[in-house]
Amino acid sequence: MTSPPLQGLLHTEPVVATAGVSLFAEALRDQAVAVAETDWMPPMAGTEAELARVMADPRRAAANALAHARMVAAEASLVDVRPAAQCLGLERGTFLHAGPPIEWARASGPMRGALIGAALFEGLADTPQEAERQLERGAFDLEPCHHRDAVGPMAGVVSPSMWMYELRDEVHDNTSWCSLNEGLGKVLRYGAYGPEVIERLHWMTRVLGPLVQQSVRATGPVDIKGIIAQMLQMGDEGHNRNRAGSLMLLRELLPGLITAQAPASDVAEAVRFSGANEHFFLNVGMPACKLATLAAHGIPGSTIVTTMARNGTDFGIRVSGTGDAWFTGPANTPQGLFLGDYGPEDANPDIGDSAITETGGIGGFAMAAAPAIVKFVGGDVPFALEATQRMYAITQGEHTAYTVPILEFRGTPTGIDVTKVVRTGILPQINTGMAGAVAGTGQVGAGLVTPPQECFPAALTALAVALPD
Amino acid sequence: MTSPPLQGLLHTEPVVATAGVSLFAEALRDQAVAVAETDWMPPMAGTEAELARVMADPRRAAANALAHARMVAAEASLVDVRPAAQCLGLERGTFLHAGPPIEWARASGPMRGALIGAALFEGLADTPQEAERQLERGAFDLEPCHHRDAVGPMAGVVSPSMWMYELRDEVHDNTSWCSLNEGLGKVLRYGAYGPEVIERLHWMTRVLGPLVQQSVRATGPVDIKGIIAQMLQMGDEGHNRNRAGSLMLLRELLPGLITAQAPASDVAEAVRFSGANEHFFLNVGMPACKLATLAAHGIPGSTIVTTMARNGTDFGIRVSGTGDAWFTGPANTPQGLFLGDYGPEDANPDIGDSAITETGGIGGFAMAAAPAIVKFVGGDVPFALEATQRMYAITQGEHTAYTVPILEFRGTPTGIDVTKVVRTGILPQINTGMAGAVAGTGQVGAGLVTPPQECFPAALTALAVALPD
Repeated sequence: MTSPPLQGLLHTEPVVATAGVSLFAEALRDQAVAVAETDWMPPMAGTEAELARVMADPRRAAANALAHARMVAAEASLVDVRPAAQCLGLERGTFLHAGPPIEWARASGPMRGALIGAALFEGLADTPQEAERQLERGAFDLEPCHHRDAVGPMAGVVSPSMWMYELRDEVHDNTSWCSLNEGLGKVLRYGAYGPEVIERLHWMTRVLGPLVQQSVRATGPVDIKGIIAQMLQMGDEGHNRNRAGSLMLLRELLPGLITAQAPASDVAEAVRFSGANEHFFLNVGMPACKLATLAAHGIPGSTIVTTMARNGTDFGIRVSGTGDAWFTGPANTPQGLFLGDYGPEDANPDIGDSAITETGGIGGFAMAAAPAIVKFVGGDVPFALEATQRMYAITQGEHTAYTVPILEFRGTPTGIDVTKVVRTGILPQINTGMAGAVAGTGQVGAGLVTPPQECFPAALTALAVALPD
Repeated sequence: MTSPPLQGLLHTEPVVATAGVSLFAEALRDQAVAVAETDWMPPMAGTEAELARVMADPRRAAANALAHARMVAAEASLVDVRPAAQCLGLERGTFLHAGPPIEWARASGPMRGALIGAALFEGLADTPQEAERQLERGAFDLEPCHHRDAVGPMAGVVSPSMWMYELRDEVHDNTSWCSLNEGLGKVLRYGAYGPEVIERLHWMTRVLGPLVQQSVRATGPVDIKGIIAQMLQMGDEGHNRNRAGSLMLLRELLPGLITAQAPASDVAEAVRFSGANEHFFLNVGMPACKLATLAAHGIPGSTIVTTMARNGTDFGIRVSGTGDAWFTGPANTPQGLFLGDYGPEDANPDIGDSAITETGGIGGFAMAAAPAIVKFVGGDVPFALEATQRMYAITQGEHTAYTVPILEFRGTPTGIDVTKVVRTGILPQINTGMAGAVAGTGQVGAGLVTPPQECFPAALTALAVALPD
């Protein structure tokens, strides 16, 4: 019953299809010729040969399908809250940090500020100057959060006394961790280390952590993946907009907090602190996405990105098929909206493990679900819609649990494929908080950013090297 | 510096502008003539003369601008929770109900069911049969909620022992009330009156009401208008989607509930009951909208609708410039999605005071802010977007506090103008729960509905009669 494919070809006006540079299409239009332009863009310069080889890898299609299937099938339940010394085995004198590995000499202002603050908080130094001297002479060990299956927002500095959310994916038998959220403004993760910052960290260790532990243990596992699915129906995208998610997490934890065994004034302060923070959810959303990407990691032949993380100096990615190798480039500086009197000159380059949200298919990739976020990170509503739609071109597929109502419940674009990024030149869209460039400043704004392009050709080269003979 | 208006007219191709029936436009297009169609539709039949007279009323523009300004300026704070006997002076043997006035003989199944249930709950009858006999012989007084500045969802039956939310608009010195939400399924407001319904009502009177009162009094006024503004940024439209609103209300009330002076088991059950109900917010959202429309009511010459309400038999509207007169027509039956095995044949005609949300500029008028609602009320995402956009044609202006992110933060269409409805034939878009037609059934689904057309020409006639000589 199908028509011969060319029937009708000579009955309609011809239309010229063009690809690439628009000059040809414009010239045709000037001559009143109907033109259909495709979105084709050239691949990143110099990648053609490796791209062809990696894309021809016979393992690739199945490996990427498996990576995507595992990523969307991963569960994420909040099961406990414990000190980092206990749950990560973190030793005194070791600090975890966001992003790929970095040494003090190359660390940015907010990373240095957070490390100084952590040293003060742990009692490893009495003054910021002393802490700085010790850090400078390499007295402490620095290690990426990701190397312990943990994630840290912004500077992401974790020290042994800090309490961590512990999340489990029973399907793939993985565990991930993230520190408790400190609130906004002058906080350690943005590089502030003043007395109020250190005092708050002590209160979190002494009061908040044990209370949240009591609540989580009393309430039983909290289904964080289920909350993320709901958030996207409620105007959140899970990276810089977490309002509905924070309320849902609060609904789960509040009864257990309020009835915890503790002095009433401690309980009241913990409830006030948690309820006042509209990013309360981020610190469980991030390890939930880490569990998704962990499940997709380590599949030979897969070109799916399983980590995107920044230390404030370098942006690094890791890829499923290339194991634990990092592919890095200099972190870009976000463009966005600023708090108070801060301006673009105050912003540090991109920092934090929170791009794990985009790696897992939410955050910047789900901005179409959260148009109100443009009031916080900049851009406009059409940009938010377009950002999500653009990401389908560089991802393996749609998320099966995370959907975007305004796109008629289409699943979020999930599983960044290195070959698709290199072939199209389209870079992952990230939204992010902005830290002040000077150590000790704190948050200066929020904005939009992409990874540096060079991470992806570097990963492609490694994928080409890893091809079977 | 402006060009002469007709300059260029002869330099471009002519375009024919057409209005009304599309036949002419189609005939032109068939002849390859460029056509620009306007959205013009004829006014409702037979209304032309009165429409011209009412629209020519010199008071109208200023009166409607004032009505709109008062509607959007109205505040809404939850200030107390009290029994209806106390706050409304409701006497034993009097029942309030939703919609315009109605007597037992004409009452629909769910309205009868709710009245039977209320009589049982108040101990005015021992059996449903006895309650029905008494109601039939007019032993009790029936009165619309709206006549006491209250609003009731679905059947909206209020009896003296029921506890009411009390909301205040200090700007216009108005107060409004609504009963506490019973949850979903087999509940009085959907016409169910089985033992579990009556038992729940007793528990609400004995336990829940006094606990919520303690919480509201401890927490101080809760800014309900502020929560509605936030909800619309979080995927709610405030009529049949109240998820974010319910969480925000819970965040305000939960600490006060949990620390209330009461047995721990009562507190635990009140917290569980409130947290499990994603329509928890509706019963404060409705009186908030009632306060907005109350502020706009009673302005001579204003053609703005200040009430839309249904009793399950009749749909009634009231208009700012015509005082307390109701203009009614037979209620339509909603089209939508059904629970379990229920189908269209089980649905009662439209019922409830909850269309006060649309009257105040949210609900069906804000569906573009809540695309996920189509999974609950039917329709699709383009319909949700289009519903809000269509309502701008029949409203006085945009809300200044309630905005729709996806429409680039445009204010919701607010203040239905009788003359615009009559002139365009566009009817207000309402979304609604559906009650079973048989008394005692409960909820059968949720859907989409409009008022019967005849309310609006009837109101127009009254506006014409009220014109100054």
